[in-house]
Amino acid sequence: MTVLTLDANTLLQNIETLGNIGIDNQNGGRSRIALTNAEKLGRDQVVTWMKALDLTVHIDEIGNIFGILPDQSGNTRENALMIGSHIDSVYNAGALDGCYGVLAGLSVTKAYRDLGQTPSRPIIVAAFTNEEGVRYQPDMMGSLAHAGGLSAEQVLNNIGSDGTRLGDELKRIGYHGDMPLGTLVPSQYLELHIEQGPVLDKEGIQIGAVANLQGISWQKIFIKGKANHAGTTPMSMRHDAGYVAASIIAFLRNHTDNNADTLATVGSIQFEPNAINVIPRSAELTVDLRNPDNAKLGIAEQALVEHLNILRQKEGVTIETEVLARFDPVIFDEDLVHSIEQAANALNIPHRRMTSGAGHDAQMIARIAPAAMIFVPSKDGISHNPKEFTETYDLIQGAKVLLATVESLLNITHP
Amino acid sequence: MTVLTLDANTLLQNIETLGNIGIDNQNGGRSRIALTNAEKLGRDQVVTWMKALDLTVHIDEIGNIFGILPDQSGNTRENALMIGSHIDSVYNAGALDGCYGVLAGLSVTKAYRDLGQTPSRPIIVAAFTNEEGVRYQPDMMGSLAHAGGLSAEQVLNNIGSDGTRLGDELKRIGYHGDMPLGTLVPSQYLELHIEQGPVLDKEGIQIGAVANLQGISWQKIFIKGKANHAGTTPMSMRHDAGYVAASIIAFLRNHTDNNADTLATVGSIQFEPNAINVIPRSAELTVDLRNPDNAKLGIAEQALVEHLNILRQKEGVTIETEVLARFDPVIFDEDLVHSIEQAANALNIPHRRMTSGAGHDAQMIARIAPAAMIFVPSKDGISHNPKEFTETYDLIQGAKVLLATVESLLNITHP
Repeated sequence: MTVLTLDANTLLQNIETLGNIGIDNQNGGRSRIALTNAEKLGRDQVVTWMKALDLTVHIDEIGNIFGILPDQSGNTRENALMIGSHIDSVYNAGALDGCYGVLAGLSVTKAYRDLGQTPSRPIIVAAFTNEEGVRYQPDMMGSLAHAGGLSAEQVLNNIGSDGTRLGDELKRIGYHGDMPLGTLVPSQYLELHIEQGPVLDKEGIQIGAVANLQGISWQKIFIKGKANHAGTTPMSMRHDAGYVAASIIAFLRNHTDNNADTLATVGSIQFEPNAINVIPRSAELTVDLRNPDNAKLGIAEQALVEHLNILRQKEGVTIETEVLARFDPVIFDEDLVHSIEQAANALNIPHRRMTSGAGHDAQMIARIAPAAMIFVPSKDGISHNPKEFTETYDLIQGAKVLLATVESLLNITHP
Repeated sequence: MTVLTLDANTLLQNIETLGNIGIDNQNGGRSRIALTNAEKLGRDQVVTWMKALDLTVHIDEIGNIFGILPDQSGNTRENALMIGSHIDSVYNAGALDGCYGVLAGLSVTKAYRDLGQTPSRPIIVAAFTNEEGVRYQPDMMGSLAHAGGLSAEQVLNNIGSDGTRLGDELKRIGYHGDMPLGTLVPSQYLELHIEQGPVLDKEGIQIGAVANLQGISWQKIFIKGKANHAGTTPMSMRHDAGYVAASIIAFLRNHTDNNADTLATVGSIQFEPNAINVIPRSAELTVDLRNPDNAKLGIAEQALVEHLNILRQKEGVTIETEVLARFDPVIFDEDLVHSIEQAANALNIPHRRMTSGAGHDAQMIARIAPAAMIFVPSKDGISHNPKEFTETYDLIQGAKVLLATVESLLNITHP
């Protein structure tokens, strides 16, 4: 029997309000890239809502935002349950990725306020800095640093793709807080998120109880060949950096054809000089490999290494690689996953266990606390796109499962 | 027995002077893109040299420059021998491509002036507008239009990659001349050029008597797939425009492996949104196909069409193609080619017949007059690059062969 009630209207309204900040007028998307002016406005809105709920707001020294509903003794730190995600976006994004989780976290605290009750343990709603990693790399930076994976200094001195220093931008937008990084270590962590993949939508299931998360391997590959005239250079005398890049992409597709659970994506490529009649002198491409099994992820990485060696020899090019990110697969906390399933059962909402294909802040916080995630369907699996869409009904069901899970983990104490 | 003498020093000096116009300070190249300020300065220099040689200078309405050494009766048009090429360049180019031919043409007229003699027929030195096609497409535009392949209106209304109208830029730099397009139809046409390929350099031969020129097929391919999250979209559910682009590149390589004299190059590519963790929504690439045999060129084009059909079906993407240029192979005039060989023989310079891999103004003028080309070696075949290099000795030998060929075609008449 649940006692707390979700204010679904406020949640939906808040999603819309936050989604209108940083809107791209031409195409219906929004761009709230970390620490830009648009993202500052998003932060301001979230902090305003936190204060309206009379939460205790802390900003840490890398801009992570925490809104705390204290327990009955006024304790804001010990034995806390954290509900987190992020409000920064990619370019031309949908309104749900990250924001949904933060705002559903606020709706949990609102449910306590609406009932006039206090939780038995503090509830911390967290919005982590720079989850998307568009401007400053790596992604999931705020939660990674919060979990001890990066020092505050490393984060602040990070130089972005636009040449800016993260610390300078953080100060400029007024979010260089005074709480030391890593202060708030929760006892449990929950994150509600859209799936960003097609599984739940395809299967018509409302809730994913996320039991684990794929390992991620990101690298950049730099190929140096030789620029030459497209009409006069015999095929046998070419050192075509563009062909080598294409061969890598084709190789990865072939590898995934033979290794069913490996995902491989080349999302980004550049040729130099990029002219129709010049054999590319150089090519750069990114490789994104994922697998829930670390050994299989390693097999894909090693297979690529061997293919690059073949290409070096066969095509007479130099190839260098740079690791951009490497995260082992994460196994979430079995008790929390079970609690999520129980909550969905109690509400009669269809659910299934699943693997997260995307990276999330939860995987970082899992380093310092038991953590798990709740997924809701993404229409056609589309995300990082203005067409990102989840049925209103599903958004509400997801927030209800989050609320019920929190309620099952925390006793309500009457003040 | 030749009577005319090449002024090699002046030729080499002029190459250096023209090569310093539009110089890129950082990397030793130069950029004299058609109808830019830098190219205007190049044109001014060439016209100054023409006037210093007391040539009759005409600029036509699309900016083609003609410097004419009249015959003894003052005739500038009838039965003329034209020596032409271009002085525009690609970005970051060498100093020889095009310029060498124009300046060697001037050195032919200088040889007559130095001897105080007049040729039996007019000699026209031509510098054609926009051979490179970097800013305005197609390439070889000035000679194509001169040969009747484009109207003056079509040329002047051409919109460049930078959004400018060619006619406006032509007026802006002061080269919108008053000679009607196509006025000067020569009786014969010669073009001296660096090979821009590795054959002569590799074989240690100074002179190529160019007997034919490859057909060229340029197209742009537009692929539309579906952007989606790299971590959450199963490989089987992807519509990856980037993979399709890579598959085209790999297919073309495979086709050339099985069709020895076909050249295929993908020099330029763009992915959208071009992000590491987003499956490319769209991809654009250019395809450059060449073959001296038109039927074989058609086979390559058709094989590509069929591969695109397979990709459409297999990958669930839309693919559109746009023809950017299509030039049939050209067979040069046998008598002129033979004259070049005879001239090289008379000078004891090693020579061979060859096919031009690159496109040249000569292929356009071949539509309206007997034409042929003379090649000199390009070190390592490098061109369109600051490293473009031909030994000074070879440059002089090439100009000597040009001069001797002209001398064999024209009787010297004593004034």
